[in-house]
Amino acid sequence: MERLALSMGDAAGISGEIILKAAHRCLDDVVVYGSYDILDHYNERFGHSFRLNRISDPSRAEEGMLHIIDVGGLKYRDIDPGKVSALCGKHAYLFLERAIRDTLDKKTSAVVSCPLNKEALNLAGYHYAGHTEILADLTGTGDCAMLLWSDTIKTIHVSTHVSLKEAIERVKKERIVKVALLAKELLEKAGIERPKIAVAGLNPHAGEGGLFGSEEAEQIAPAVKELKARGVDACGPIAPDTVFLRCHKGEFDLVVAMYHDQGHIPLKIMDFDDGVNITAGLPIIRTSVDHGTAFDTARKNIADESSLLKAIEIAKRLA
Amino acid sequence: MERLALSMGDAAGISGEIILKAAHRCLDDVVVYGSYDILDHYNERFGHSFRLNRISDPSRAEEGMLHIIDVGGLKYRDIDPGKVSALCGKHAYLFLERAIRDTLDKKTSAVVSCPLNKEALNLAGYHYAGHTEILADLTGTGDCAMLLWSDTIKTIHVSTHVSLKEAIERVKKERIVKVALLAKELLEKAGIERPKIAVAGLNPHAGEGGLFGSEEAEQIAPAVKELKARGVDACGPIAPDTVFLRCHKGEFDLVVAMYHDQGHIPLKIMDFDDGVNITAGLPIIRTSVDHGTAFDTARKNIADESSLLKAIEIAKRLA
Repeated sequence: MERLALSMGDAAGISGEIILKAAHRCLDDVVVYGSYDILDHYNERFGHSFRLNRISDPSRAEEGMLHIIDVGGLKYRDIDPGKVSALCGKHAYLFLERAIRDTLDKKTSAVVSCPLNKEALNLAGYHYAGHTEILADLTGTGDCAMLLWSDTIKTIHVSTHVSLKEAIERVKKERIVKVALLAKELLEKAGIERPKIAVAGLNPHAGEGGLFGSEEAEQIAPAVKELKARGVDACGPIAPDTVFLRCHKGEFDLVVAMYHDQGHIPLKIMDFDDGVNITAGLPIIRTSVDHGTAFDTARKNIADESSLLKAIEIAKRLA
Repeated sequence: MERLALSMGDAAGISGEIILKAAHRCLDDVVVYGSYDILDHYNERFGHSFRLNRISDPSRAEEGMLHIIDVGGLKYRDIDPGKVSALCGKHAYLFLERAIRDTLDKKTSAVVSCPLNKEALNLAGYHYAGHTEILADLTGTGDCAMLLWSDTIKTIHVSTHVSLKEAIERVKKERIVKVALLAKELLEKAGIERPKIAVAGLNPHAGEGGLFGSEEAEQIAPAVKELKARGVDACGPIAPDTVFLRCHKGEFDLVVAMYHDQGHIPLKIMDFDDGVNITAGLPIIRTSVDHGTAFDTARKNIADESSLLKAIEIAKRLA
């Protein structure tokens, strides 16, 4: 069975620490795309005692060792843990690029990614808003969407890393239908048959019958109608401040969120430690931890690996 | 001591039921502004056995009875529980209007309100977006704001019942400062000394350094700066998808939310049953339950009175 390509993200953050912590439970499932030297340093510093193995082809991985594809040769002495740098931004991109390439080439079964820092990425000359945008670009995907997955709430976003003003402009019937269909496909792949999909409103009280905005009547309700016509078990638009609670209580399998924070606020507050970020619509499977680089705790070895383990579990389930 | 003016809201909803359930614990704290006949009907139907007393002046209230100021003489036989009607919309307005008047006249110490239905209100010719707008109008208040109060999360809103597009337009430095000061005053009145106030961003990741929107740099950060200059323990702008979790964990006393759902989504999902809605900035104290009329369960006597009891408790604390 092919392994998962685990991309290290920004090496100045907590990725090295959580990869080693997680490796105690997923050693034979992954190949790390990252810095051999930094993992070697943390392996010794924090007493993990893994046997590390530098390889160039993921098919060479054997059981019982932590395999690393050392992209770019980044050294521990060259980084400044906890600080934004162009060097780490550049390598985060290189790790991810190679992980994507090997997965497109079917050498690995899916990409699982550790967090990167957007400012570092931009300093290095890679002008992307985040992982999702790099993945879409490098796989030549037009329509993809960010899905957040936790045990009780799953939500996919009509838009993500744009201003709220721009997000409102992107609430269009066609995009809502597309995003809901991507979510349906992914949920079915994960074994959820005929998923129940709730579509959130954009405005307070889902527009209160037109009193607080017209997007529900003009875009969202027609999208729900079309989804139903296509046989999707969809409903909505539902008031944004109750739809996630209803999902959490089991009424729906997933909520289509109209913008980044509409979906992120409830998921992060309910399931902060074990949320997983999935990019739906790519030609490859890709999951990611649902937290940032946590520069403030880097090198303290206190970061929690739960989200990474969950990202690995879901990637295996989907791959 | 003066009693609280408990306004019945839309009589076709669950208000009659929750008022009677709550009365077992707050009988001597309130005078109900509502329909004598409907409360009499539910008192018998659901076996509460309260002695009801119709009065016209709240100072006449005695211990051990449920006192009702019967505004408008609405009868049970004229209403259709669970349905939107102009008749109930009209009376919801009349109950509230009288409760506000008596509280302005210091006959009662605060207004506590049960939910109304905006559609019914509009059908009756009262074109308000909600309670807050009626209260602002009838007390001649320019700057007020909706504060949601629960044990762990408290949040005040820069705007509430407007479209999201309009809400973005209302994110202005002056309004943010005003709203934060109203919150500070109210928290201090409730006994929280030198409250820690977090100001949320508007855009994803609080704008990610200007990559996703400019409101943080142009309006929100200058507002925080001014608040600090005025001696408020304020910080921000903080990413909207983490600020509420940090508040929930005790880092802040209150979050200034930039729009309705930013504050409502996390509060409703964390503390749905005992949230209280407070209007900050009025010349009178006003609290309210944090749920709707629940027309779908009307007359079933299954509605939970926790939020109403909490609204009464907070009103007593503030009054």
